[in-house]
Amino acid sequence: MESANSNLVLYHAWLSSASRRVRFTLEEKTLSYQSIIVDLLKFEQHSPEYLLLNSNGVVPTLIHRGYSIIESTVICEYLDATFPELPLRPVEQRALARMRVWSKWVDEVVLRAFQVANWNRMMGPTAAPWSDEEVAQRLKLIPMPDRREDWRRVAREPFTESEIDHAISNISRTLDRMEADLANGPWLAGDAFSLADIHLSPYIVRIGEHAERGILLANYPLCEAWWNRLKARPAFVRSKIEPVKFSASS
Amino acid sequence: MESANSNLVLYHAWLSSASRRVRFTLEEKTLSYQSIIVDLLKFEQHSPEYLLLNSNGVVPTLIHRGYSIIESTVICEYLDATFPELPLRPVEQRALARMRVWSKWVDEVVLRAFQVANWNRMMGPTAAPWSDEEVAQRLKLIPMPDRREDWRRVAREPFTESEIDHAISNISRTLDRMEADLANGPWLAGDAFSLADIHLSPYIVRIGEHAERGILLANYPLCEAWWNRLKARPAFVRSKIEPVKFSASS
Repeated sequence: MESANSNLVLYHAWLSSASRRVRFTLEEKTLSYQSIIVDLLKFEQHSPEYLLLNSNGVVPTLIHRGYSIIESTVICEYLDATFPELPLRPVEQRALARMRVWSKWVDEVVLRAFQVANWNRMMGPTAAPWSDEEVAQRLKLIPMPDRREDWRRVAREPFTESEIDHAISNISRTLDRMEADLANGPWLAGDAFSLADIHLSPYIVRIGEHAERGILLANYPLCEAWWNRLKARPAFVRSKIEPVKFSASS
Repeated sequence: MESANSNLVLYHAWLSSASRRVRFTLEEKTLSYQSIIVDLLKFEQHSPEYLLLNSNGVVPTLIHRGYSIIESTVICEYLDATFPELPLRPVEQRALARMRVWSKWVDEVVLRAFQVANWNRMMGPTAAPWSDEEVAQRLKLIPMPDRREDWRRVAREPFTESEIDHAISNISRTLDRMEADLANGPWLAGDAFSLADIHLSPYIVRIGEHAERGILLANYPLCEAWWNRLKARPAFVRSKIEPVKFSASS
């Protein structure tokens, strides 16, 4: 166990939802860290130097005592175990399991749903104008097959309406599940604020972008009350999880 | 902390890879349990009774002290924390993070890759003959949108060659990563056998099914040695992780 002054370095991007989850965790635990910004639109995450730290070529990466830790869910549990003050995980094993089921749901369903629902308009303006040669060159640098295919899609074969409908149904199901679990709240894992709440936050902050498809937080009263409590936490403000701004012309 | 004689009930299926991961964990920890088989081909996992235990409608589910725990990765960590004898997780936090990065990779990449590579021939013979009415009726009972779409695909729009190629590239990348990590082995998380090794095992047992696409364990000497060590563990044999048998006519 260590003091809060240990050397922590975070490679991250302001608009990356996985980066936001780690920043929120660091702020809740009042851990200071050196911030190194990775410019995603310059594809610095695929540079040979960065791949030495994170062979998946994604943000964030945490460096602690010269050792690199990857995957936001894993980083957050690592931080909570290494710096046990201001805990963000329930001690009781059933509540801990409930927290981890949420973390997994975010990583496996929510992250993908928001990507499919948003990437055409967020990344399309960057990727669609690439020449075939530029597409090939960009894709060659992406180490993860899934992520490579995503960039190919957004550059040449945008997500279809049917895929976006499917993503929206996953967002609806997420809000249904949250509403059900929050009946045994006030937080997603039960009595105490935890990493489960943190992992959902960068997605709920953008929920308003899907109002035209019928996704309205106001239809989920427990979710809305939860969101208002969460937003009022000082660490939320300090971790800079503001809505993404984009326009078709930018 | 409890004795190993606590009441544990496992709802599982012999051929489900997630069920195998939990059985292997129970056998490694020498925990006895009541076994309840869920017949996946009769879709018992979508029955109203089962959905009360596991709202995702998938196996396995662990019942402990009357409380249901879902998601194999979460169940295995729960068992290891609740029954601390014969630990299957590293104590050191960096090694634990390494173990969890593997668990996530299995859940997010490996599981999907083997599903896309195998479902046409495994599930196709069951689902393709359904009438449109039967398809609609089956799909309505499936609670998870992603799983519902998978069954629609296998019944009406089988995975394409290009999707299967992509799955195979994810299997290759998995073996490349394993080979790299096992250089700092002998186990995937380092010195000690852990849940990382358990989570990979039900997929590696089936690796031979993809030999015609160039996937050969013999090309990965550290993986092959690891697999031989793993197969020799008495708990592996007891947990019944034998290869899946199927034929196009069955």
